[in-house]
Amino acid sequence: MPKKISYLQLLSFCENIFLKIGCSNADAKVAAKSLLIADVRGVDSHGVARLSGYVRLWEVKRINASPEIKIIHETPSTAVINGDAGLGLVIAPKAMQVAISKAENVGTGWVSVKNSNHFGIAGSYAMMALENDMIGIAMTNASALVAPTFSVERLLGTNPIAVAIPAGEEPAFVADFATTTAANGKLEMLQRKNSITPHGWVQTKDGVPSTNTSELKHGGALLPLGGDMEHGSHKGYALGAIVDIFSGILSGANYGPWVPPFPVYVPLPANMPGEGIGHFFGAMRIDAFRSAEEFKNNMDKWIQRFKIAKTIVGEKRVFIPGDIEREIEEVRRKEGIPLMQQVVEDLKELGEKYGVVF
Amino acid sequence: MPKKISYLQLLSFCENIFLKIGCSNADAKVAAKSLLIADVRGVDSHGVARLSGYVRLWEVKRINASPEIKIIHETPSTAVINGDAGLGLVIAPKAMQVAISKAENVGTGWVSVKNSNHFGIAGSYAMMALENDMIGIAMTNASALVAPTFSVERLLGTNPIAVAIPAGEEPAFVADFATTTAANGKLEMLQRKNSITPHGWVQTKDGVPSTNTSELKHGGALLPLGGDMEHGSHKGYALGAIVDIFSGILSGANYGPWVPPFPVYVPLPANMPGEGIGHFFGAMRIDAFRSAEEFKNNMDKWIQRFKIAKTIVGEKRVFIPGDIEREIEEVRRKEGIPLMQQVVEDLKELGEKYGVVF
Repeated sequence: MPKKISYLQLLSFCENIFLKIGCSNADAKVAAKSLLIADVRGVDSHGVARLSGYVRLWEVKRINASPEIKIIHETPSTAVINGDAGLGLVIAPKAMQVAISKAENVGTGWVSVKNSNHFGIAGSYAMMALENDMIGIAMTNASALVAPTFSVERLLGTNPIAVAIPAGEEPAFVADFATTTAANGKLEMLQRKNSITPHGWVQTKDGVPSTNTSELKHGGALLPLGGDMEHGSHKGYALGAIVDIFSGILSGANYGPWVPPFPVYVPLPANMPGEGIGHFFGAMRIDAFRSAEEFKNNMDKWIQRFKIAKTIVGEKRVFIPGDIEREIEEVRRKEGIPLMQQVVEDLKELGEKYGVVF
Repeated sequence: MPKKISYLQLLSFCENIFLKIGCSNADAKVAAKSLLIADVRGVDSHGVARLSGYVRLWEVKRINASPEIKIIHETPSTAVINGDAGLGLVIAPKAMQVAISKAENVGTGWVSVKNSNHFGIAGSYAMMALENDMIGIAMTNASALVAPTFSVERLLGTNPIAVAIPAGEEPAFVADFATTTAANGKLEMLQRKNSITPHGWVQTKDGVPSTNTSELKHGGALLPLGGDMEHGSHKGYALGAIVDIFSGILSGANYGPWVPPFPVYVPLPANMPGEGIGHFFGAMRIDAFRSAEEFKNNMDKWIQRFKIAKTIVGEKRVFIPGDIEREIEEVRRKEGIPLMQQVVEDLKELGEKYGVVF
């Protein structure tokens, strides 16, 4: 049984670790919150399990704990932000806030970010728009693990897209997904179970379809959403490419095979064309299109219609994007966050190294 | 062998048909061009093959040939347009032009459209941004043929997304795809060959996976990109839903199962909550983010790297989104557009009815 730790205990631990590596009080709070929202919503691969990874990036000076995050170019509806090699967990909420402010002024705001690092989960930044009666969009590129359709080489990251849309009485619509058939986290889960993957998730280093969960360690690749051409993988590839270009090329970050990897033991690509990794954020004020009340009434109608759809045999309900994560969040905020033994040990070790009690 | 007809001959025929149903000279020209770009780029299901379908919608007064297309709400970066039940082929380029003008002024422009009809292919409107050194985005909802993950019922259209991104020396990146595993047009092609579909394209009216190309005629459904949950269909479903909400709910058009069908013989849904079908357009000025020259140099680098990727056995190249359509366009503009016999006969019949020589 995984051990359950309360949200507040984990939050305080993460905050203290971020303080120890030199983050300001405000940044440590924001970073801890950005990181933990992944655990809270059930995306275990992107939360505290990665904390020691972030610290290692700081140890080798690839993360700057006291960055000067600056707008370097802007128009009334757009901005480019230089993250100064800071934590993506700190840069991302600031960038999303800029998008929201621009939307307040001119209807929408669009912000591309360079010189950042991994930012956790995309959904939490998209969701910042909701309380402002806005639609929120967040995406990021990531180091190359994905082979485009017909390619043997890994050229794209899992490049997730999140879109959060407010509703009225119903909970918000929150889509948040990697543009691959399956995210890397799901692969790791099957690995721990000594299971195989379904078809269409991975290929070998020679580009042959595979069901081996360890394929990535042997030079294989994840496949774009669709799996192969016959099942529309050129669409998943196009989506991942769009995320890469909006995040990496619009901002001046790295892109494609040049995005720096998260694990410190993986060498940096040669001849990187940009700075750090890139993100892209958008905010659209609902009442820049129509009254927020009318919009939300119609969103409720949309959601209620989809929820009552007749299901296929063996399934109990049609989910609205965000349902599963929200329901996990309700439980975990009350009952605590279950951590696997290896994550607990990793955090203990990190705590001992930095003098923070876990 | 399909008969080849020159682009100009087809253009003139379509223009004359649109004049006969009462379009203005300017609108007839625009509509003919919007329609034919589908044939020119190889999306045969969305071009002249649909001309008689548009005319039938006009005959039953569901298409207004002389609409007053009006901005009914706007901010510096957004607008909502009422298409007055006009041809989507005329409304869409006007709406995209509004997005482009707003982007000129404040960096980006976003336009949601209600009370429209089918607009042909999304890619051609997204591509209008290219000559302005902008990124273009176009999407539309459509009548429900797609069952969300776990649903037996059809609740979404094939809801395509197009994104056009300028490059420098390389041709532009142009993604344009339905958010289903396969578009309806591909199903129809297999039907004519008496072939079966791959797995993950369709299900029966009871929600059982099927490979029967005629499944839709018997109440079955297309499946979202991914095919089933194990292969990420919840992502394709989320994408289709986002297109539906941006196009239908932001504007005040119909959405979900209430989007009016294209064929006149299919009855309109009961209790429709909006007006007509909806589209969504976006334009982002490149230099609202960074210098267009720098951006295009990096796009060239991106494209050149992907183009030379080592391919899987049996494939000759990794395609950049838009390559296939552009190469078809080059041939067809020179050699003419191949039309299947049944399309030729349909056009002849239409021409006879309206006194236009084919």
